[in-house]
Amino acid sequence: MPADHGPADHGFLAVDSGGSGMRTVVGTVERGGLARRESREPVRTGDRGIDPDHFMEQLVPMVRALTAETGIVRLGTAAVGAAGLASLGAALRAELPGALEREFGIGPVALAADAVTAYVGALGARPGAVVAAGTGLIAVGTDMTSWRRADGWGHLLGDCGGGAWIGRAGLEAALRTYDGRAGGSAALLARAEELFGPVKGLPGKLYPRPNRPAVLASFAPHVAACADGDPVAADILRAAARHMADSAAAVCPATGEPQVAVTGGLLNMGDPLVVPLEEELSRRLPHARQVPAAGDPLQGSVRIATDLAAGGLTLPGDEAMLCVAGEGGGGTR
Amino acid sequence: MPADHGPADHGFLAVDSGGSGMRTVVGTVERGGLARRESREPVRTGDRGIDPDHFMEQLVPMVRALTAETGIVRLGTAAVGAAGLASLGAALRAELPGALEREFGIGPVALAADAVTAYVGALGARPGAVVAAGTGLIAVGTDMTSWRRADGWGHLLGDCGGGAWIGRAGLEAALRTYDGRAGGSAALLARAEELFGPVKGLPGKLYPRPNRPAVLASFAPHVAACADGDPVAADILRAAARHMADSAAAVCPATGEPQVAVTGGLLNMGDPLVVPLEEELSRRLPHARQVPAAGDPLQGSVRIATDLAAGGLTLPGDEAMLCVAGEGGGGTR
Repeated sequence: MPADHGPADHGFLAVDSGGSGMRTVVGTVERGGLARRESREPVRTGDRGIDPDHFMEQLVPMVRALTAETGIVRLGTAAVGAAGLASLGAALRAELPGALEREFGIGPVALAADAVTAYVGALGARPGAVVAAGTGLIAVGTDMTSWRRADGWGHLLGDCGGGAWIGRAGLEAALRTYDGRAGGSAALLARAEELFGPVKGLPGKLYPRPNRPAVLASFAPHVAACADGDPVAADILRAAARHMADSAAAVCPATGEPQVAVTGGLLNMGDPLVVPLEEELSRRLPHARQVPAAGDPLQGSVRIATDLAAGGLTLPGDEAMLCVAGEGGGGTR
Repeated sequence: MPADHGPADHGFLAVDSGGSGMRTVVGTVERGGLARRESREPVRTGDRGIDPDHFMEQLVPMVRALTAETGIVRLGTAAVGAAGLASLGAALRAELPGALEREFGIGPVALAADAVTAYVGALGARPGAVVAAGTGLIAVGTDMTSWRRADGWGHLLGDCGGGAWIGRAGLEAALRTYDGRAGGSAALLARAEELFGPVKGLPGKLYPRPNRPAVLASFAPHVAACADGDPVAADILRAAARHMADSAAAVCPATGEPQVAVTGGLLNMGDPLVVPLEEELSRRLPHARQVPAAGDPLQGSVRIATDLAAGGLTLPGDEAMLCVAGEGGGGTR
């Protein structure tokens, strides 16, 4: 039986759209998130960037199911966090708010880069810096007047210290030993052969693949597994930690008492990465307090949607990173 | 008028097949190379690796034209240097010697990796090490009993110090400055914007391209141009020189009086690379004599073909690097 929600309840929709699919929550400001759906199909990216029609195709049945399940009669606000929004989001920004308004009567709609929803999920609406580290790596920070971002340039131009970066460095060290070059690691060579077979065949297992960063990142946990006892592997993780601290330092407010958090799958590597990372962050950002991330990007999206419903965002607006469409008075400042 | 060659003359065919096309020479042992043809179409690589049929399709008309031009009535031996032979040459090795025999009565045929023809072109049949540095980077060396190779793993796994490596490092430094991260270079950022436009658009100009290593390498000369005055650019070239010396040291005979040479387009960068490279090679290989490359890979192929015609190679054989098919008595030792 649907719960009973009066017309006075402020319903919201929160979305997190990324490389592994779309996750959606509906709820009310009064009660928080009430139900959630997930699609495993990532939204297509075409000539116009993120495809708004495909976005709606995925979203509409999930929202219908969620409103039926929760009995929420009116969704007032929505927050949509989307990977690639900053660089590939022009069509989505132009069309999604109108589509949500026509389909569900929703407005205003906040559109946020996935780095922003990661930030808000991790730290909420306060000054600081968040490093989102998975296959790639991006840092985002705010002093609550504007957003800054660092890295996130992809596996060839940057993403320094991310999973693909660590895995790539580990495989290079393996091949150095195979060749008899300096700077190699026999432990990493053994791991590489376990994972990929004889290393002569490694180029053939990497270069033809469309998802090269993921192939590289698949070796990152093996670098962590070798770090206790293998100085080359330990040095790779120390260098990754330095790169992550470089990015955090580039976006973190220089004054005040900012918080800094690291989120993403890379933390699963545990102490071999986390210990040098905490050291590098302390060294580079002595005035910042290191905190665990409070929540994930979907929770960040929920937070943005509820703030918007409750009268407007206190987070800074930014054309590429966070904008609100179809609002009346209260918006980002 | 064709020159007059007696039936006693030992005709040969030499081929250099690479990413930019196929170059072919015919000549005689007595007179050396006599005429040359060039095709701008690289041999196709398919499911079976380098395509032997496409190879012959390109080669046959060139050889017909060359024998007509030179009047050489019988080609006895051939040397074929081919990029990718070690990893993608199985079908070529299996079929090319028979095809050359049927079409032109040629035999024996030497098949060499392009790194080997580069070596022989640069140093001839003597012990040493050659670093072939263009967009990629590979080193090959011999003590005249066997071949060693180092690197050549491609732009994600290695090719450390090559053109794509240098260009990639330069672009990363440019983006560090753009982000406000440590380790950046304002000079390289200015160069990157001159070459690629606003750096926000740089990922879109790199990742969709099929020839990413070439796009990265296109920035390498700009790193060299900044090195006088920009310490970050100078450090990149110093690190590239160290990587090149690592590869040279891995393949160079440890004893005796080996020669070491560097070949390839990267040398066009001049002093900003060459000066640290000579220093690093002296430091790592004090017993080796640094010499300029005597010739290019096509000249290496000519040398292999004439040696073969004159009674057999003095160079070591190696299944992947240098093998002779269809020979009688004299072959590689």
